[in-house]
Amino acid sequence: MEQRQLIDLLNDMSLEEKAGQLFQVTGDWFDGTEALEQTGPEAEETARIRRRYGHLAGSVLGVYGAANIKRIQSAYMERQPHHIPLLFMLDIINGYKTIYPIPLAQGAMFDPEFAGDCAAMAAKEGAAGGLHVTFSPMVDLVRDARWGRVMESTGEDVYLNSLYAKAMVEGYQRPQGGTDSLASCVKHFAGYGAPEGGREYQTMELSEETFHEFYLPAYESAVKAGSRMVMTAFQTVNGIPATVNRELLRGILRGEMGFDGVLISDYAAIGETVIHGVSEDRADAARRALEAGVDIDMMSGVYPEYLAGLVKNGTLDEMLLDESVLRVLELKNWLGLFEDPFHGADEAREARTSLCEEHRKLAYEAAVKSFVLLKNEDAVLPLSPKQKIAFIGPYTDSQDMLGSWSFTGGAETGAVKTIRAAAEEALAGWSVTYHTGCPVLAPGTVLEGFERYKPCGAPQEETDRWREEARKAAEEADVVVMPLGEHCFQSGEAASRAFIEIPEIQQDLFRAVSEVNPNVVAVVFSGRPLDLRVISERARAVLSVWMPGMEGGRAIIDVLTGTRAPSGKLPMSFPYCVGQVPVHYDSLMTGRPYRKGKQERYVSRYQDIPADPLYFFGYGLTYTSMELSEVRLSKHELTPGEEIEASVTIKNTGKREGTETVQLYLRDVTGNTARPVKQLKGLKRITLQPGEEAKVAFSIGEDQLKFFQKPGLWDSEAGAFLVFIGTDSRTEHSALFWLKKQEASENT
Amino acid sequence: MEQRQLIDLLNDMSLEEKAGQLFQVTGDWFDGTEALEQTGPEAEETARIRRRYGHLAGSVLGVYGAANIKRIQSAYMERQPHHIPLLFMLDIINGYKTIYPIPLAQGAMFDPEFAGDCAAMAAKEGAAGGLHVTFSPMVDLVRDARWGRVMESTGEDVYLNSLYAKAMVEGYQRPQGGTDSLASCVKHFAGYGAPEGGREYQTMELSEETFHEFYLPAYESAVKAGSRMVMTAFQTVNGIPATVNRELLRGILRGEMGFDGVLISDYAAIGETVIHGVSEDRADAARRALEAGVDIDMMSGVYPEYLAGLVKNGTLDEMLLDESVLRVLELKNWLGLFEDPFHGADEAREARTSLCEEHRKLAYEAAVKSFVLLKNEDAVLPLSPKQKIAFIGPYTDSQDMLGSWSFTGGAETGAVKTIRAAAEEALAGWSVTYHTGCPVLAPGTVLEGFERYKPCGAPQEETDRWREEARKAAEEADVVVMPLGEHCFQSGEAASRAFIEIPEIQQDLFRAVSEVNPNVVAVVFSGRPLDLRVISERARAVLSVWMPGMEGGRAIIDVLTGTRAPSGKLPMSFPYCVGQVPVHYDSLMTGRPYRKGKQERYVSRYQDIPADPLYFFGYGLTYTSMELSEVRLSKHELTPGEEIEASVTIKNTGKREGTETVQLYLRDVTGNTARPVKQLKGLKRITLQPGEEAKVAFSIGEDQLKFFQKPGLWDSEAGAFLVFIGTDSRTEHSALFWLKKQEASENT
Repeated sequence: MEQRQLIDLLNDMSLEEKAGQLFQVTGDWFDGTEALEQTGPEAEETARIRRRYGHLAGSVLGVYGAANIKRIQSAYMERQPHHIPLLFMLDIINGYKTIYPIPLAQGAMFDPEFAGDCAAMAAKEGAAGGLHVTFSPMVDLVRDARWGRVMESTGEDVYLNSLYAKAMVEGYQRPQGGTDSLASCVKHFAGYGAPEGGREYQTMELSEETFHEFYLPAYESAVKAGSRMVMTAFQTVNGIPATVNRELLRGILRGEMGFDGVLISDYAAIGETVIHGVSEDRADAARRALEAGVDIDMMSGVYPEYLAGLVKNGTLDEMLLDESVLRVLELKNWLGLFEDPFHGADEAREARTSLCEEHRKLAYEAAVKSFVLLKNEDAVLPLSPKQKIAFIGPYTDSQDMLGSWSFTGGAETGAVKTIRAAAEEALAGWSVTYHTGCPVLAPGTVLEGFERYKPCGAPQEETDRWREEARKAAEEADVVVMPLGEHCFQSGEAASRAFIEIPEIQQDLFRAVSEVNPNVVAVVFSGRPLDLRVISERARAVLSVWMPGMEGGRAIIDVLTGTRAPSGKLPMSFPYCVGQVPVHYDSLMTGRPYRKGKQERYVSRYQDIPADPLYFFGYGLTYTSMELSEVRLSKHELTPGEEIEASVTIKNTGKREGTETVQLYLRDVTGNTARPVKQLKGLKRITLQPGEEAKVAFSIGEDQLKFFQKPGLWDSEAGAFLVFIGTDSRTEHSALFWLKKQEASENT
Repeated sequence: MEQRQLIDLLNDMSLEEKAGQLFQVTGDWFDGTEALEQTGPEAEETARIRRRYGHLAGSVLGVYGAANIKRIQSAYMERQPHHIPLLFMLDIINGYKTIYPIPLAQGAMFDPEFAGDCAAMAAKEGAAGGLHVTFSPMVDLVRDARWGRVMESTGEDVYLNSLYAKAMVEGYQRPQGGTDSLASCVKHFAGYGAPEGGREYQTMELSEETFHEFYLPAYESAVKAGSRMVMTAFQTVNGIPATVNRELLRGILRGEMGFDGVLISDYAAIGETVIHGVSEDRADAARRALEAGVDIDMMSGVYPEYLAGLVKNGTLDEMLLDESVLRVLELKNWLGLFEDPFHGADEAREARTSLCEEHRKLAYEAAVKSFVLLKNEDAVLPLSPKQKIAFIGPYTDSQDMLGSWSFTGGAETGAVKTIRAAAEEALAGWSVTYHTGCPVLAPGTVLEGFERYKPCGAPQEETDRWREEARKAAEEADVVVMPLGEHCFQSGEAASRAFIEIPEIQQDLFRAVSEVNPNVVAVVFSGRPLDLRVISERARAVLSVWMPGMEGGRAIIDVLTGTRAPSGKLPMSFPYCVGQVPVHYDSLMTGRPYRKGKQERYVSRYQDIPADPLYFFGYGLTYTSMELSEVRLSKHELTPGEEIEASVTIKNTGKREGTETVQLYLRDVTGNTARPVKQLKGLKRITLQPGEEAKVAFSIGEDQLKFFQKPGLWDSEAGAFLVFIGTDSRTEHSALFWLKKQEASENT
């Protein structure tokens, strides 16, 4: 449709119809499949609204499947005064039918392009299943392992997150607007990843500098990559809920970042600004949100209930309403819905695309790439066919490894191959036994609010029998592989944890097993960095596999046996214990830093634990060893417009092929404000054969040296910079250069 | 001396002499008593500087005692070109010779005036001991129990801290400048109490709103109360170290708050801005600090080394130097040092004043008032003479209860009466036994950096014997009193903890004892809120006694036996566990608050622990029970200039006299920004006989409704307010009123 036609359409609409276009309702109103729970304190209120205004809604969340959506769309369009089609949106976070690793695991791939390919696959399946928009990527930067939703982030680093944001948006929207793609809705604007104490929905407590320099850039990267939608955050920014924060939404998002797509609230978030104590009442909430620039009201229903009235009584300018409606119409048009309201949705295509061989392969590859080898004492891994191997642990034969956002795939399709199933297929001729050992959670454990998801429990007597069997198997084995970890609903939305250890029942199992057989390989499932002190000390090898998706079983077996080698890197520091959070590698320099090897009391640290996290950002081993040369710089002075080449020679000094991610970090030695100890500024993956060496080079230009100075201004400061190149964020391989600028550096 | 004479003196000084007035050095330079350790990464550098420039210094820290100081002063003045006397400063935190409870315990008194009396006593003793300035009060607001220095704060509440700041400054300086007083140096400006993760010296991470509204007011209160000095904070504010932060120091402190006294850096902090990566080098640090308004360089020595040169080469305006020197001279003059350089210091007076009966009485009273009774099941307390009582625990016979800032008193004087000593005196005729049970810390435990302080250890075999003896004693007793807790060097500067439980060896003892005798009264020593889950569940009574000072033993016995009743209230929330920090009662309202009694998943909380802290701010029991009526308001509309009276009737419904602290909290129901759930705005202590009732009334005016709007502007907003009156911060007793303002409330 031409833009002119959209405007004509808009002009022909009633106020109520317009407001309806800005209202999103769950599919239950349409009697469709309802995938989502009703959430938030306003659940009763929104139910009332849904009954009353559901027929006006211009978009839907929570339904999926081509047949389903086509039926709803057809019926709706017939009824809609101008036959405007609905938009169908859903949280497709790590796959539609083919479930691949959770976003935090994708972060561990240190391979944004590959995550983009995964996104494209998810979009292809989702679009075939009738969907138009995915509420993804979540690009919220995270530093607190307690927050449940770290599983949905790509980690603690602004640079890495920005690369992922771009790649994932481009992946979902590839080809732009085409029927193999989805529109991307980046979330949650802004700073949702920094709730106080890691407590879900709690106030964000960040300085302006940190917010701008570390938290905002990934959203901007997504916007610049063309994300058609943005979702607001629940919490406040500068005291004002993001959802009604005009300075944030019109000022920064639409103004500074130039976002001109559709802005949607999070679930019921507009109405909740009343509970926040900022909007006087629901009508006021509607006014504030629209004035702040929020186009679509997800679920709270204040838009259909009040917008028309507010325009009629002169409180709201109809222009504002029109602006938002036009954006929604433009999105529908971008997706081609006026020509093909089904956007190519088709049951046959859905069936053909979903879980196809090519997609499962991609999911497998993503899983392999996301595993992080944290420890491998005396090369206990890979396993050998000569060993007697016992798999002991609740994830040995569990399909429950898809993460908390996988309701469209996984369980429904039954297509998940467990570790055991994969091993039985791949390890013919090996001597292997399998034992659950204990349930993921102790019998009777309730994950409050997750009652509908039964933990894979077992009665106590069964558990005792399992434990005994496990001990016996451990005694008889040469090596014990222990697939352990969090329950998949211990991370995700509304799953903040104050304790970040593996469930106690599994710790007990681990202790029991490792007492009788110290040759333990721990395979750790989690949606967050865990406190792995005990496991890390006692196990001989530790492989972090996150929530690896439906090909996780096969990928784990192949990596354990050396068919494939691990190459993932931590996208988030693993704290020593929960008392150490938040801990992140890019802290600002302090005046009293901890200095390795020095026994000093008056330095920045805790008295009772090591100063460092248990495992650093960027860390991860593989099955071979690599040696890096000193850092070489092409020159030692940089002027704006020029570039310095920083390089190392890397050599595979081990006996196997290996893939290493070489990382570039910079430190601004002196700034007018305190600067981070180190900041990631480049990464290169390289695969080397035994004995092979190669040069890895990075370009450094002035742009990489810029940082937030004040709202609207990023700039570099002349002076000294340290260049670090290494294989994790601890690297001390460094060289120094100077940035020279014509304007003398301001000494203020 | 007349101001004119000071100016003449200033004009007669050489540049080097001026810079010397701005330099503070430790007493070792003078071969005096050296009470402080050399701290910070710059220790070697400062030693060099001290050797070279010590003779120029205009003030000294770390020496005390009249004889000592008089000797140094005399020798120095002879040498000083203009015979200008030195200033002697020291950390007198909770007493000079007579040690009273630590500041956090003083917070628990909920009685700022009484803390002021204690400060006056400390000043009287300190002044007799030759001192001029105390680096106190620390008014940093604290929300993170991990930070070691919470022991030196009066807690988490801005209102309470502001009252204490005023009272303590006035106490130290009573009478103003007189020889019975000290000048007060309030610290640490600003925001030192909010290091990321509670990690000492780490970056402060706060939003501008929180910083202004919650953290700054207590400093302002101290400044307005006339504090003659202010000390800067180590960490950054808006990315710039506080010590060289011109906007903070000249803008907010000297500008907005109107501070015109002497501003001193923290220990070596000016030089450390180089390590911070903000000052280019030490000369640059000197320039930045002076330009920012820091008058005295404590220990880093960049002032004597560089200021004269910077003036000579035209980098610094001599006016800036003069301004600072004049402030130092003015302070010396305010103290009367030009007339009496010893400020009345006198060995006989020192001996007479220190530890006199009156002072010990005050310290005793402060201890009694600071104890918080957290639990008292079935009125197990007070103890009865009919019971067979066993005291079991490492604090039973320990003098180590003065807190980490008590080096001038306590150990040196040997005047601390232990619990056992107090009991043996007071409980003649009772059946009591005493058992250490275990050491405070497990044998071999090292508090890193505290090597010079031996934990009261014991060899393993002795410990085993103790444990056995304790079990036996517990079996034979009717009730077991367990004096347990942190080591006194587990809190204080550079004593952040990632685990905030009682040391494990004591937990083991507690479990062993409570297994054989459930009738346990835990008496908990600490410098911070601890994770008391286990103790709180298993002990029948829990009394928090902080670090109670040298009269702690007597006070504890009197409270346990009912000679006195506990009346303290928590000045800081006790978290459920370390994974819940930071937790504080005055959180901003969220859109998805936890609602008591509702089983909701999508609310602000952790999945695995209760939503509330273990014990709330403002909470504390006594030996009687009180009943409060509903909240009555004198009217329901308030206009600026008027006041509302809010009152309750409180009745002692128990059988003993009791003292209750009635607390007034307000909530701004709707604001243009999210407002705290509740904010303390008034408190009244009242003592009632059994059956007695009284009315407790508070005045509420517009001033109490104002909050931070933008830098420089605090204002109220018209609308509804909830008034809560109760005996802790949980109170739900409330009434509603409206603030009406002529200007319509801005709906932006």
